[in-house]
Amino acid sequence: MAATDSQPPVGQMSTARLETFADGVFAIAATLLILNVSATAALGSGDLGRQLLHIWPSYVGYGVSFLTIGIMWANHHTLMNQIGRTDRRFVMLTIGLMMFIAFVPFPTRLVAEQIRDNDARAAALAYGITMTGASIFFISVWLYASRGRRLLRADADPRTVRGITRTYLPGTPLYLTATLLAIVSPVTSVVMFAAIAIFYLIESSIFGGSRSDDAPDG
Amino acid sequence: MAATDSQPPVGQMSTARLETFADGVFAIAATLLILNVSATAALGSGDLGRQLLHIWPSYVGYGVSFLTIGIMWANHHTLMNQIGRTDRRFVMLTIGLMMFIAFVPFPTRLVAEQIRDNDARAAALAYGITMTGASIFFISVWLYASRGRRLLRADADPRTVRGITRTYLPGTPLYLTATLLAIVSPVTSVVMFAAIAIFYLIESSIFGGSRSDDAPDG
Amino acid sequence: MAATDSQPPVGQMSTARLETFADGVFAIAATLLILNVSATAALGSGDLGRQLLHIWPSYVGYGVSFLTIGIMWANHHTLMNQIGRTDRRFVMLTIGLMMFIAFVPFPTRLVAEQIRDNDARAAALAYGITMTGASIFFISVWLYASRGRRLLRADADPRTVRGITRTYLPGTPLYLTATLLAIVSPVTSVVMFAAIAIFYLIESSIFGGSRSDDAPDG
Amino acid sequence: MAATDSQPPVGQMSTARLETFADGVFAIAATLLILNVSATAALGSGDLGRQLLHIWPSYVGYGVSFLTIGIMWANHHTLMNQIGRTDRRFVMLTIGLMMFIAFVPFPTRLVAEQIRDNDARAAALAYGITMTGASIFFISVWLYASRGRRLLRADADPRTVRGITRTYLPGTPLYLTATLLAIVSPVTSVVMFAAIAIFYLIESSIFGGSRSDDAPDG
Repeated sequence: MAATDSQPPVGQMSTARLETFADGVFAIAATLLILNVSATAALGSGDLGRQLLHIWPSYVGYGVSFLTIGIMWANHHTLMNQIGRTDRRFVMLTIGLMMFIAFVPFPTRLVAEQIRDNDARAAALAYGITMTGASIFFISVWLYASRGRRLLRADADPRTVRGITRTYLPGTPLYLTATLLAIVSPVTSVVMFAAIAIFYLIESSIFGGSRSDDAPDG
Repeated sequence: MAATDSQPPVGQMSTARLETFADGVFAIAATLLILNVSATAALGSGDLGRQLLHIWPSYVGYGVSFLTIGIMWANHHTLMNQIGRTDRRFVMLTIGLMMFIAFVPFPTRLVAEQIRDNDARAAALAYGITMTGASIFFISVWLYASRGRRLLRADADPRTVRGITRTYLPGTPLYLTATLLAIVSPVTSVVMFAAIAIFYLIESSIFGGSRSDDAPDG
Repeated sequence: MAATDSQPPVGQMSTARLETFADGVFAIAATLLILNVSATAALGSGDLGRQLLHIWPSYVGYGVSFLTIGIMWANHHTLMNQIGRTDRRFVMLTIGLMMFIAFVPFPTRLVAEQIRDNDARAAALAYGITMTGASIFFISVWLYASRGRRLLRADADPRTVRGITRTYLPGTPLYLTATLLAIVSPVTSVVMFAAIAIFYLIESSIFGGSRSDDAPDG
Repeated sequence: MAATDSQPPVGQMSTARLETFADGVFAIAATLLILNVSATAALGSGDLGRQLLHIWPSYVGYGVSFLTIGIMWANHHTLMNQIGRTDRRFVMLTIGLMMFIAFVPFPTRLVAEQIRDNDARAAALAYGITMTGASIFFISVWLYASRGRRLLRADADPRTVRGITRTYLPGTPLYLTATLLAIVSPVTSVVMFAAIAIFYLIESSIFGGSRSDDAPDG
């Protein structure tokens, strides 16, 4: 929507249209998460009240995945805010990121349904691999665009650019750690994924007010 | 889309992109409601005509939830109309609101399938908790933005701002009342949720014409 | 997206945001149609090739409903093109229209699965009622906006406005006729719904080229 | 979003709104692909880890179809970038293209579930017919718009226009070949569809960097 996007040179995708597609995938992937809860509830039988309490991991899974997708969406915005133009490689990397974001509902359902069973390990691993894949594409999109200021806006502040890199870089190692944890303890792994989302939320509530506009927000 | 959004300062999300994501979730959540009707119809057997009449609570549930999501979308627009800029806390509160909006199809299906059964109470409670949660996030988004004119447009009219606050504040107590009613009488609770939506509709038809532009529209 | 929408007065929804929501519902409703085909195919058994041929009504249903939703979307654009501003009643009427558009996948599935069975009548009636409801809201949205030029753009050409009214008015009686036909002959009814969509398509190919810009396009 | 779209003459659809609808269908069709994976996984039984490995064709199918839809979306953008205005025939052709894009999830599921079975041929044929249909509409949309510069932007570079035609024309014969291959060998056919997507990806990584802006990107 930035004024600079209004008439992209031939052969470039406007950042506006890239964002429309990306926002669509983020919004749909997040909203589809509710189908998991619905499907899990339909599996049960007996007293509905008890059943609705019994599937609490579905609500937690819904919350954690919705929040994680929401945070990635917010971060994607922060990133796109610095981008002045695109090229085909950038578009392809974004499609790769979207492929992992859209995948999230599947392992979310696996974790919600299996976390109390013997199959918790496979479910947590599937969740972790998806999240790690998403974070790898996320940092790739950013590093590709910011390396040598390749696709940055002419007026992108170097301090902000470095701040974003610093904020996003730990994502992949963090998610990879949580994923590997699943081999030892699926529950701990899943708790760590929830903790990452909640940590970001708390950090946003402390530093994300409108008075901290000078800080890089990631 | 407002002209003031065209080039947000680094570290702020444009209100335009926030609205794209929010509109996406509102539209998807509302449209997914039809999957409930489809799934409920598939459960039945025997003569299709009779079956289609038998699942009338599914149509009512579809209508009430679609209308409620539609009204919240319209109100969200009225709210965003007053917002000049965003910060991370505002974005996080909006994601929280979206999390509840996207949840609506699940309890809608529960109510539609169970309202004539013994499990009506649990279903109505689930519906009520979701709606109350959505309304809590809704008023939080607004109070956070309007408190001390934190994120308001410079030209936001104080009278309109107070009018919006006055219109939105009763939402949570109303929904909470309807929710608690479910403990005593699930049917009365569900009727109250329908009545809230219909009341808003009627109020819009009377006061929402283009001649009442001077009145705050909520 | 029209320049006149960029800063709507307080209390009005920009036509841009109304279109974003409407476009979302149109696109999602059309895309969800494929879930019907998938579900119907999953019901079958035996040789896949034969089964894929056997469910041909699902493809026809998919095509006709996708086309009908697509045409309504295109017409909705033509209509919105004449609108300069909105009010709450207009927004509520649009939500009503969306409620019927989003409903289309359900009766489409019923027709596709039942048209060769005894239950064809109920299925065709359900399809017809949905389409008639959509067309009633469609013409209501337009008549409300154009009556006395209530919400029209200042520069809306009276000849175009009358042309749109003339093109949209027959919609409801046509759909109602097709619906009532279902009581006598479900197959004829469904053929008529397909014929309406195909007629519009052919009419577009003949008169919808870029040389006929002076004709009202509806 | 191009400045030239801001106020389309009466009777024309703005390219912006056409793109909003198209982007919606692209994004939803791609995101719905995950429901296939979820449904296929739900069919299995026994140890979850083994089952998740067993359904690997679902992941490949998800990846290939997501990538193909993503590439078509990127190409659609390149195409729309050259379009200055629309007419009704162009809109109808785009709706036809969308009808095939939205269909992709269904044959993707068939292929993923059947490629190791006797039914692989029918599944691969269904996939191929869908892809060939999409490519026929794609080239039709472009040829209709570019023939005699009918709908092109006044400033569209003839060299770029010819470059796009040259890049898109081989699409249909390629997809048709892959489809016919399914009769002889379903696996080879499916491998060819994957190869087409991967070829485009590699070509983008080599020629799609921001230094090759002068080359036509398709």
